[in-house]
Amino acid sequence: MFKRNLATILKIPLKAQSLISFERKIPLNVFTVFVITKDNFNSRLISTTLLESKENEKLGSNTFTYRSHTCGEIRSCNIGEKVTLCGWVQFVRLSKFLLLRDAYGLIQCISTDSKFDLSSIPLETIVKIQGTVTARPKNMINPTMTTGEIEVSITDLEILNTVDKIPFNLREYQKPKKQLRLQYRYIDLRFPEMQYNLRQRSNMLHNMRRFLIEKHSFCEVETPTLFCRTPGGAREFVVPTHHRGLFYSLVQSPQQFKQMLMSGGIDRYFQVARCYRDETTRPDRQPEFTQLDIELSFTSLDGVLSLIENLLYESFIKQLPKPPFQRMTYKEAIEGYGSDKPDLTYDLKLRNVSHLFNDKSAFLVAYSQILGKLSAKYREIINKLKNKYEVNIVFVENLSKALGEDITSNIRHTIGRENSCILALGDKENVCLCLGEIRQMLAVLLKSKSLLSVEETMAPLWVVEFPLFVKGENGLETCHHPFTSPHPDDLHLLDSDPSRMRSLAYDLVLNGNEVGGGSIRIHNTNLQEKVLKVLDIDSKKLTHFLDALRSGCPPHGGIALGIDRLISIACQTESIRDVIAFPKSHDGKDPLSGAPNDISDEDKKYYHIGIVN
Amino acid sequence: MFKRNLATILKIPLKAQSLISFERKIPLNVFTVFVITKDNFNSRLISTTLLESKENEKLGSNTFTYRSHTCGEIRSCNIGEKVTLCGWVQFVRLSKFLLLRDAYGLIQCISTDSKFDLSSIPLETIVKIQGTVTARPKNMINPTMTTGEIEVSITDLEILNTVDKIPFNLREYQKPKKQLRLQYRYIDLRFPEMQYNLRQRSNMLHNMRRFLIEKHSFCEVETPTLFCRTPGGAREFVVPTHHRGLFYSLVQSPQQFKQMLMSGGIDRYFQVARCYRDETTRPDRQPEFTQLDIELSFTSLDGVLSLIENLLYESFIKQLPKPPFQRMTYKEAIEGYGSDKPDLTYDLKLRNVSHLFNDKSAFLVAYSQILGKLSAKYREIINKLKNKYEVNIVFVENLSKALGEDITSNIRHTIGRENSCILALGDKENVCLCLGEIRQMLAVLLKSKSLLSVEETMAPLWVVEFPLFVKGENGLETCHHPFTSPHPDDLHLLDSDPSRMRSLAYDLVLNGNEVGGGSIRIHNTNLQEKVLKVLDIDSKKLTHFLDALRSGCPPHGGIALGIDRLISIACQTESIRDVIAFPKSHDGKDPLSGAPNDISDEDKKYYHIGIVN
Repeated sequence: MFKRNLATILKIPLKAQSLISFERKIPLNVFTVFVITKDNFNSRLISTTLLESKENEKLGSNTFTYRSHTCGEIRSCNIGEKVTLCGWVQFVRLSKFLLLRDAYGLIQCISTDSKFDLSSIPLETIVKIQGTVTARPKNMINPTMTTGEIEVSITDLEILNTVDKIPFNLREYQKPKKQLRLQYRYIDLRFPEMQYNLRQRSNMLHNMRRFLIEKHSFCEVETPTLFCRTPGGAREFVVPTHHRGLFYSLVQSPQQFKQMLMSGGIDRYFQVARCYRDETTRPDRQPEFTQLDIELSFTSLDGVLSLIENLLYESFIKQLPKPPFQRMTYKEAIEGYGSDKPDLTYDLKLRNVSHLFNDKSAFLVAYSQILGKLSAKYREIINKLKNKYEVNIVFVENLSKALGEDITSNIRHTIGRENSCILALGDKENVCLCLGEIRQMLAVLLKSKSLLSVEETMAPLWVVEFPLFVKGENGLETCHHPFTSPHPDDLHLLDSDPSRMRSLAYDLVLNGNEVGGGSIRIHNTNLQEKVLKVLDIDSKKLTHFLDALRSGCPPHGGIALGIDRLISIACQTESIRDVIAFPKSHDGKDPLSGAPNDISDEDKKYYHIGIVN
Repeated sequence: MFKRNLATILKIPLKAQSLISFERKIPLNVFTVFVITKDNFNSRLISTTLLESKENEKLGSNTFTYRSHTCGEIRSCNIGEKVTLCGWVQFVRLSKFLLLRDAYGLIQCISTDSKFDLSSIPLETIVKIQGTVTARPKNMINPTMTTGEIEVSITDLEILNTVDKIPFNLREYQKPKKQLRLQYRYIDLRFPEMQYNLRQRSNMLHNMRRFLIEKHSFCEVETPTLFCRTPGGAREFVVPTHHRGLFYSLVQSPQQFKQMLMSGGIDRYFQVARCYRDETTRPDRQPEFTQLDIELSFTSLDGVLSLIENLLYESFIKQLPKPPFQRMTYKEAIEGYGSDKPDLTYDLKLRNVSHLFNDKSAFLVAYSQILGKLSAKYREIINKLKNKYEVNIVFVENLSKALGEDITSNIRHTIGRENSCILALGDKENVCLCLGEIRQMLAVLLKSKSLLSVEETMAPLWVVEFPLFVKGENGLETCHHPFTSPHPDDLHLLDSDPSRMRSLAYDLVLNGNEVGGGSIRIHNTNLQEKVLKVLDIDSKKLTHFLDALRSGCPPHGGIALGIDRLISIACQTESIRDVIAFPKSHDGKDPLSGAPNDISDEDKKYYHIGIVN
């Protein structure tokens, strides 16, 4: 039986490999999908597949190539074997040792034969090396390298491609600046970190597909991205056509299509969908992004939430708490944390103490151990927030001194033993949102001084019962999107007081980040038309959609998960750019090609467009 | 142990179910992926997965919903069970029988209780039915229905959504016209055929992912679709940005990105990629389409071909011949079949008989048993082809009479016992292409008269050794794309006679359709620059790409498979539109929404564009 190293088969990056102590060899017809975290070894068995591999069938990372092994997979058990390796020259030492790197690891190759002239090979040259695996002398064993017990004695060396001088080398301790890394992304991708991020992304999406298709009979359907404008949504890119004056819009989500699929009997749909929004001016946004788009018929809010909890529990690359996840209403989130996406990895809850003050306007409290030491910088930020939200802020550094014993003991009853707090007074929602921002700022400060205990785990949270509408500049606007079902208990308010209606929308929040959002949808045409009317959206622009609802559309609901954000949190990267192979810069520019560019006059003529100011 | 009907778990459509005799029950923790063909039962075990299902964990099509079963899965073994079903009213008979349909099948429900008033429910109403499974009376058993042995005695019926009058009902024998079906696609999708096509598409893509990721360690990477214009390719859609006069192009393939990934150490890449081409005026083309895009480092032509053969053999939903597939050079294809994508499901080969005629120009022969009976219509088509290709055509109905005994016996020696043939004379390539078209036409004619034996199997074929360049209006153009590697044996011709060079490109042909194309790529910057020069492409527009090659890019090659076409062949549909959920019409219009549409003045202003003639 053909055997191969497990860590290699599983494409575990070097960093993680060193933390793993697997059985060195496993029979190859048992393929096991593990989930490994980058920073701490925390693998979880996702599933085991029995592949029908024939005797001697080559599997793994080296099939259909002329290498026999990857650089990362060779161990003591391979001593004596002849191997063919391909990779980049990472380093040459003493004209004798060549450190060879590929995506799977590093290996030391050795030759004293002058015909190979190792020292003349520029770093990052791509070479093919044939040789024999030998044991390193005992005193040369490197325990920090997974291949540190062996080396490859070179019998042949071929330069596969020449290399010009490159803008930076692959040294962790000499990492180039962000802009340079993005400009030469094809070199940047060679860093183990980027390899890890992209491969974990691929693994997570595959785990998700296996869960949805194999376990729960979902059907992946590809829907168009060239479509008509969605009324009432974000700004959509337009695409001119050769029909004069007529444009497609690039979809901001497959929302309409997935609802039409429900009407069409594809009752369990998903798609790893490319979506487009022209929000290039907002930080950490990409003009195109990926969402896992899911919709199913004959379900309920509990059904969708349970589906997503189990999906993430089984496919996310970090350990999540066992479902069900915590739930909170929008009201509870705002009043308790001053945010609709509270970070629950630390405590610092807001408290309503308005009943203690004889005032109808709302009072709330955020408390802090270090209020007295708050530097001028922080006080200034707080002052700005105060102005932004138009609320009054009172710093109370000594409760009983400031407010007297009676009220202090009442406050202590509510907030515990804290002696200092920040009181805010004003419009209730504004007070909450202002204190929410202060809460986040204090958390950063307290964490930096180790005064706040932060749980390192993942803290997923459902926020439910969002308002159906929000007040906008020109009347009511939708809080999620126009197809969100009202909460059944609030239907009676649709004609009389729609602004007070709650919806069946839900957001999934992970450690303070919104990673998904969805809702039970409106399936009844009359109700949909009424909601469009409240939103002042011309229903004629949605004729096809309304017709689909009225053709016997089942009740349905779903969600969209932000894949870029999810992976970014799992891989603990600074930005979603670090989990996207070729991201755009802040202003929507492609750092490699410089796109967007000007186009030819011929193209302009073909599309009947001219450039105006 | 929780048990469930296999056919249901596997989402086997009704049509196919009736052809399958499974064990009625299997334990649910063994999940098996079958591949089933629509027309003839020809299932193949792809793989068996052991799922870690807990006792009583619900799996399959009914999780996270309020139905207990699908309409198609109930059998005699369920008699006595209380079930909840959701679906569309397909038919009501005698105010007593209600035929309920969902995506998984049909089931008869029965009630004589007047409170349900079955006959008042419009067809295609979506209802929830609770009831008890009962055996049908012996004389009522319907052996043509998979659920024909049982019926559901209704205890409760709830109308989930009202239905207005709809443009057509779901009757196979009353299928509406294509245009109407596309306009109301959400109803059309309810037909079992469309359900089958979309679900098989999802299955095939999932099988492909399992093969690539689990068996062969490939990494799926999402690459951008908003990019710069590819020089020398098809017409690309442009996307205006708020940077005045600057446009993205929608990628026609991830070609540049996948090669940069090779440089970046993602040595085994694939992507189910959305691609865009503004070819809306060509029949059976879609402005956006899907390709399985694959690339790997350190490989050879044989390596890529073997990878794809095994991929398709294991994941295609029709039985393919065991790898390796047949191979043919471009020259052999043109001279033997008059086409670079010959259909090998029938014989009718072209023969070169130029050596028999004392003439330097090329002669070739297509022979036919029914030449004498060829109607005027066909002769007219042949005459048009003759003019199109500027060749001479001679119909020879009696060889010896026309050409004399000597030459006839020589021809018979070459072509067999045929007595009639079509001779063509002229430029060799034109003669071949002309006879190639005649060959296809004759095949249709001969098949219709059962005079040609056609193999019903799949006949995949690799066409290799394409020319590197073709003659275009303005000098040499690329035959595949500018990044295709020249054939190593022809490198010496690059300066002297590039038009004679062959390439390392390959096309995969399935039953006369091009379903994939790829090549070993150029990895050397100097060679790439020379090829760009021959093609008169400004290499400054590809600086980022050339820099990636010169940064230590490994040798690499790959392919792109046309997913729409592959599924269309497998499902034997007339058009690729039948395997796409929401296709565009011939002129690129969206039949549902009417897109493309005009855009607002505000959008035009934001994007700095005006409409011109």
